[in-house]
Amino acid sequence: MQKGLFVALEGNDGAGKTTAAQALLKRLKKEGFDVVLSREPGGPAISEQIRSILLDPANKAMNPKTEALLYAASRTQHFYEVIQPALNEGKIVLCDRFLDSSIAYQGYGRNLGQKAIEEINDFGLNHQRPDLTLFFKVPLSVSQKRMEKRGNLDRLDAESLGFHQRVREGFDVLSTAHPEKTIIIDAQKSPEEVADQAYQAILDFISK
Amino acid sequence: MQKGLFVALEGNDGAGKTTAAQALLKRLKKEGFDVVLSREPGGPAISEQIRSILLDPANKAMNPKTEALLYAASRTQHFYEVIQPALNEGKIVLCDRFLDSSIAYQGYGRNLGQKAIEEINDFGLNHQRPDLTLFFKVPLSVSQKRMEKRGNLDRLDAESLGFHQRVREGFDVLSTAHPEKTIIIDAQKSPEEVADQAYQAILDFISK
Repeated sequence: MQKGLFVALEGNDGAGKTTAAQALLKRLKKEGFDVVLSREPGGPAISEQIRSILLDPANKAMNPKTEALLYAASRTQHFYEVIQPALNEGKIVLCDRFLDSSIAYQGYGRNLGQKAIEEINDFGLNHQRPDLTLFFKVPLSVSQKRMEKRGNLDRLDAESLGFHQRVREGFDVLSTAHPEKTIIIDAQKSPEEVADQAYQAILDFISK
Repeated sequence: MQKGLFVALEGNDGAGKTTAAQALLKRLKKEGFDVVLSREPGGPAISEQIRSILLDPANKAMNPKTEALLYAASRTQHFYEVIQPALNEGKIVLCDRFLDSSIAYQGYGRNLGQKAIEEINDFGLNHQRPDLTLFFKVPLSVSQKRMEKRGNLDRLDAESLGFHQRVREGFDVLSTAHPEKTIIIDAQKSPEEVADQAYQAILDFISK
């Protein structure tokens, strides 16, 4: 049934995923590919409504399990309303964060565990996964500095350094678990070089 | 640790739960009990934000699994922020709908199955359940007529008769599964008689 290619971009905040996603969208379109770019949490209207609850700095009382269930809800809606229809039409879907972000942030960062996070998401996603995942890696000191420059931290950005270290540990584990469908991007390089690596990784994967 | 009493009021829309809950609150308070009344979906601010997504008739594109995850998220927040603290203070908590509503509406009504609904909620609730559940039963024709009188149907109220029949079937199964902590209320009677039955059921349960 599925004819397209589902590519997730993953990594800590401040690793340059969003900038790279924009560059990838342009370059792939220029090469004639039919591409859709989306992001998590967010996407369709219902997922954006959930996003605004998740990221509102006023929602300090949010229980970690509430947070994990809201991410799973947002992702489920996003998948069935945007990602799956685009894949069925043969498009390349670039998704700025997907399930691995929940495993890293809620499973590792909030200490809820990888298995529990996979289970609630598997209920929603029926065990579906990206075809290819690009992990954007920079030392935590670099991504933290980039985040400070941005200002206006949302509810998760504003978490402790210990939280972000656990998130990073989660991404490190995930980025080596499935080498056949994983590419690690050296995100310390310039934005152009980062986009080059990501673009080449997708072309290599398609031509395999 | 828990010293209070957690009472859930369950049944189809239009069965008179909300009216009975208000009457119960008054009578139990008058008898000197420390009582909290809450409702689902809703309760604390975060759960009310989720409620507004769930019930908005504009959100027609909502996937049934998104809906089930949002109810689980709302319930989880409600439990840890409102219900558990009140129980720990020894209060009686009356909850207008709880987990059994999700099993009936999403598990039976949406055909997602009881087991899957219990699993995502058990992630959130850590397997916690009400001490006593009051099931308000009226023939579907009666509750449907009451709903029509109310007007202003929300997203779930506006579902097909087949949906509401499956929901009713779910409540019928649930109301006989745990007789030791379940009371069936004949909700065809007058509001006063319904409140009497519910009040007596709680007193009987406490004095056991």
